[in-house]
Amino acid sequence: MIRSTTNKPPFDVVRCSHAVLGATDLGASEQFYAQHLGYVVTERTPDALYLRNLECRTHHSLVLQRLPEPTCEALVWKVANEDDLDLASRWFQSKNLPAAFVERHGQGRTLRTCDALGMPLEFYFSMTSAPCKLQQYDDYRGARIQRLDHFNCFSPDVQKSYEFWSELGFRLTEYTVSEESNNALWAVWLQRKGGVHDIAFTNGRGPRLHHFAGWVPSVSDLVHSCDLLSTAGYVKNIERGLGRHGIGNALFLYLLDPDGHRIELFCSDYLTVDPDLVPKRWEFRDARRQTLWGMPAPRSWFEHGTPFPNVGVVDPLIKPQPVLAH
Amino acid sequence: MIRSTTNKPPFDVVRCSHAVLGATDLGASEQFYAQHLGYVVTERTPDALYLRNLECRTHHSLVLQRLPEPTCEALVWKVANEDDLDLASRWFQSKNLPAAFVERHGQGRTLRTCDALGMPLEFYFSMTSAPCKLQQYDDYRGARIQRLDHFNCFSPDVQKSYEFWSELGFRLTEYTVSEESNNALWAVWLQRKGGVHDIAFTNGRGPRLHHFAGWVPSVSDLVHSCDLLSTAGYVKNIERGLGRHGIGNALFLYLLDPDGHRIELFCSDYLTVDPDLVPKRWEFRDARRQTLWGMPAPRSWFEHGTPFPNVGVVDPLIKPQPVLAH
Amino acid sequence: MIRSTTNKPPFDVVRCSHAVLGATDLGASEQFYAQHLGYVVTERTPDALYLRNLECRTHHSLVLQRLPEPTCEALVWKVANEDDLDLASRWFQSKNLPAAFVERHGQGRTLRTCDALGMPLEFYFSMTSAPCKLQQYDDYRGARIQRLDHFNCFSPDVQKSYEFWSELGFRLTEYTVSEESNNALWAVWLQRKGGVHDIAFTNGRGPRLHHFAGWVPSVSDLVHSCDLLSTAGYVKNIERGLGRHGIGNALFLYLLDPDGHRIELFCSDYLTVDPDLVPKRWEFRDARRQTLWGMPAPRSWFEHGTPFPNVGVVDPLIKPQPVLAH
Amino acid sequence: MIRSTTNKPPFDVVRCSHAVLGATDLGASEQFYAQHLGYVVTERTPDALYLRNLECRTHHSLVLQRLPEPTCEALVWKVANEDDLDLASRWFQSKNLPAAFVERHGQGRTLRTCDALGMPLEFYFSMTSAPCKLQQYDDYRGARIQRLDHFNCFSPDVQKSYEFWSELGFRLTEYTVSEESNNALWAVWLQRKGGVHDIAFTNGRGPRLHHFAGWVPSVSDLVHSCDLLSTAGYVKNIERGLGRHGIGNALFLYLLDPDGHRIELFCSDYLTVDPDLVPKRWEFRDARRQTLWGMPAPRSWFEHGTPFPNVGVVDPLIKPQPVLAH
Repeated sequence: MIRSTTNKPPFDVVRCSHAVLGATDLGASEQFYAQHLGYVVTERTPDALYLRNLECRTHHSLVLQRLPEPTCEALVWKVANEDDLDLASRWFQSKNLPAAFVERHGQGRTLRTCDALGMPLEFYFSMTSAPCKLQQYDDYRGARIQRLDHFNCFSPDVQKSYEFWSELGFRLTEYTVSEESNNALWAVWLQRKGGVHDIAFTNGRGPRLHHFAGWVPSVSDLVHSCDLLSTAGYVKNIERGLGRHGIGNALFLYLLDPDGHRIELFCSDYLTVDPDLVPKRWEFRDARRQTLWGMPAPRSWFEHGTPFPNVGVVDPLIKPQPVLAH
Repeated sequence: MIRSTTNKPPFDVVRCSHAVLGATDLGASEQFYAQHLGYVVTERTPDALYLRNLECRTHHSLVLQRLPEPTCEALVWKVANEDDLDLASRWFQSKNLPAAFVERHGQGRTLRTCDALGMPLEFYFSMTSAPCKLQQYDDYRGARIQRLDHFNCFSPDVQKSYEFWSELGFRLTEYTVSEESNNALWAVWLQRKGGVHDIAFTNGRGPRLHHFAGWVPSVSDLVHSCDLLSTAGYVKNIERGLGRHGIGNALFLYLLDPDGHRIELFCSDYLTVDPDLVPKRWEFRDARRQTLWGMPAPRSWFEHGTPFPNVGVVDPLIKPQPVLAH
Repeated sequence: MIRSTTNKPPFDVVRCSHAVLGATDLGASEQFYAQHLGYVVTERTPDALYLRNLECRTHHSLVLQRLPEPTCEALVWKVANEDDLDLASRWFQSKNLPAAFVERHGQGRTLRTCDALGMPLEFYFSMTSAPCKLQQYDDYRGARIQRLDHFNCFSPDVQKSYEFWSELGFRLTEYTVSEESNNALWAVWLQRKGGVHDIAFTNGRGPRLHHFAGWVPSVSDLVHSCDLLSTAGYVKNIERGLGRHGIGNALFLYLLDPDGHRIELFCSDYLTVDPDLVPKRWEFRDARRQTLWGMPAPRSWFEHGTPFPNVGVVDPLIKPQPVLAH
Repeated sequence: MIRSTTNKPPFDVVRCSHAVLGATDLGASEQFYAQHLGYVVTERTPDALYLRNLECRTHHSLVLQRLPEPTCEALVWKVANEDDLDLASRWFQSKNLPAAFVERHGQGRTLRTCDALGMPLEFYFSMTSAPCKLQQYDDYRGARIQRLDHFNCFSPDVQKSYEFWSELGFRLTEYTVSEESNNALWAVWLQRKGGVHDIAFTNGRGPRLHHFAGWVPSVSDLVHSCDLLSTAGYVKNIERGLGRHGIGNALFLYLLDPDGHRIELFCSDYLTVDPDLVPKRWEFRDARRQTLWGMPAPRSWFEHGTPFPNVGVVDPLIKPQPVLAH
């Protein structure tokens, strides 16, 4: 069940900022992300790699931490103001959720907490500056990813995820309902920054991160990414695509990094800033929502995800199986 | 001189919505915009043509009115809420500017007023729905323009335009200063919806509309637009481009419609939602700001514009002449 | 086993010209090819539809004949000179193959014959002129196919097909051998006009036509074709793609027309005019030859083809099964 | 005056192979061609730089020689067979033109001679192999030029150039006549390998090389080349473009290398293998032939060229001036 969100949110989230991912071999990660996908290396420390995309003006839009397991340590968000961090802290406490300020390299004050299903979240306002590479075309490499666009997560209870994030002021743009399950919400796309999503949830064993997504300016970049990866020893890292989702009209390519974290490269969505935008409803049975052109996805795409550390994973409440897997 | 804009705006403007332009021959306009640029015709009345772009979900994103002169009748804006119209009305009155509610076909309550230099403005919240064509690819034609992106105006007093629109909550993203004129503001780019601009002002005889701009998904659409227009009898309507502006990183094409109104087709800009985004400063002497690749623009591009009806046009306060005209 | 082809061919074939295909519903065919793929209709007769591509300067590059079965009536070739038709006639007779001059609408003298495996072939030199649409961009529709590029056929005896066509002066550019079958030839790509192929043969039940292929100028055209077909009721007609073949470096999309004839749209190959070009060898086991990016093809792509009328179809001599079907 | 060319040529030229250009600073040339345009360096010697394009399977498709002046030392051609070199030698001698076999690094037997107006030419059959980079996408850089496409020269006597090259078997595809000058030939496009040209001649002070041209697969490569060069310190090296020629339908970009040699990057032409192809006639007055979209070219484009060493340059016989220069 969806609802209209007219209440003022308790604090102001500007946009998704970056994921912090466990990497078992930072060298392999750097080769994948920097050399082949074209991420810019802002800083290497013994224990972490700080990367940013071409239009990024600050220290990182992806953090890889040397860890024994390929977990997702945090989904990180930028808020509008320092004060929003205090508002956020109080709000999470009022929900009986953990909320503590932590130190993060390259960032100002950072609040660590989690969402209603336990996904680890961090919020900050200020980050160290870094040179924007948007017009340093000589530094363009590989996929030419311009910015982080969104996170996508498996949720065992999409209705609950939807309600939590709606209360934070995230607005629904598209959603899938399962008619076979009393019109239960099967997936939701939620945004803060004016595109189709900053975060999405899909019914599945979770909570787990399904993917994070980088926006590229053109389909040529998607094609070149495939060509480059497949002939540079990464053919098995190409999981799905090119294709077009009905949802969001996204032209997509899904990759798996050396640790199995999934990254989507995509171009083309649309503007969602109108407050009276009517969210687009899709039926679960309508296969076009996930593959407009009818191309099946591999089974792994429906099953594989990145766990959050120390967060129990459970089966979803509703059971319809995705179609068109091969 | 620029300033930081931290005050809450007096009312909430969501985005630029559409221009209302005088057209001396609606048939010729329809042939240009609908048949060749691919605008969707929502409605024809004896006196007006209502057009929309591919991702538009409402009645119009461009209105052409049968008029004896090719004027710009209004720059129209969507606000966040019905209440914002009343807040806006009071605010404009407090500034001793005209403010009256008017009837507009396909729109709800509409406030007509003007800015500090006399440019006619209209504000509304609700508009009649229309089918979104984004995934009706069979209806794609010509330039495949996806949405209105921004207005660009000549201002004889850019500092004054900047201050007025800043007070309305428009945030500066890029700007040009003239070192030869005591670092006076020579041009400003201002946004509400999270891109590089909803409106821009450039030093020049005005106030006049320089152009309105449609966003296209790829450079292929720009190339096809040139090919199509030049071989369908519109070669003289191609004024400038393809090229890349340094400002906004916009890949552009400028066209003149049958009445001489200028429309820019462009792709590629960047996200500007961060409240602490530092506006990018350009020197007037740096020709790359307006032509990254060094290609000169025709003189008409610096001189020709669309007048607003009954609005006096004056010479600019500062005088540096653009370079690289041919 | 491959061999070098230095002998002067018995007559001079310039290029593949067009296929003549049986269509059970010419209206449905016209809607698919003309309205959606953007073929130009040169002429409709009660029994046939004559279509051409954008750069075609003559009457047809595809002929659809009203027939009760979706057969391939002929693969048709342009020769260099009227005299070549007589040379060809004598040569086919010398091989004890049928050879008769027939009337074909829009063509000059036409020789009908068949190859060593019975595939029906026709040869002509002159064809009625038609306006070239290459610079009539206003007439561009759908896939924007610029020209016919090649035929691809199942052969039950690739070695025999290869030897026959080599003798006609077709030059090998790439080929697949099956190490599991004594390095038997599993597939060959053969050219006359300077690209990767005018005709190719792949091991399989045959002889049957696997597909004919149209060359498009860019990947944008492939993406738009998918978007257009999938939202205009033809999603089931998209069989495979987008993808990249290792062979020929072709960026491909495979479609099935309303009668099940397969058409490939592709861009990007390379020049093969050097007489000392060394053909590129691929191992059957190397899946990259048919899918550089590792995406599996549907089973139909390996099994379905268009029969030639009254030509017996037999199982191939060698048996390895293609990998990566889903 | 044009004529049909049915005679068998005296020897068989396959295609244009490479230019040998004088470079005053090989380091600067390597930075321009290898680092920024993406040429592959096959070999550096103290006195020369051997470069090749992505699909090139042999030692060089561009040779830069350390020389005090930026001359064009030779336009080099591949012939079909070793015997053709002997046939060529005899034919040039029969025309009282110099013809001598010379040593060229990386090539087999090479004949040096000149055309009727004195342009230095070289012919060879065999060249040392080099790895083809077409599917080594990891090595793609900058402009991603796939192959050499053609040479374009100023000729003071286009009729004479046309007659000489026609006799060598070069076939006319497009041409410009000057009605103001008794329909004199003003420009010709001549081909051997099946595209619009291997060599072209335009009326002007000459003989001089106007440019050599590399074929790129897509307009994205042209846009990226502009972006890259203009932000890497080469903005003055971008002379003209992007634009579309009416002639050849070429989407073009013209660059000047550090020595002032002009290189065109272009995509999109069409197939010309039909022996009965009717050459396309353009009127000199029709500006679309050189700029379909109406964008003027800089004056340098009409006036600047690379001289051949020790070859006198004279004014053209006919005098019409190109239009649309800025």
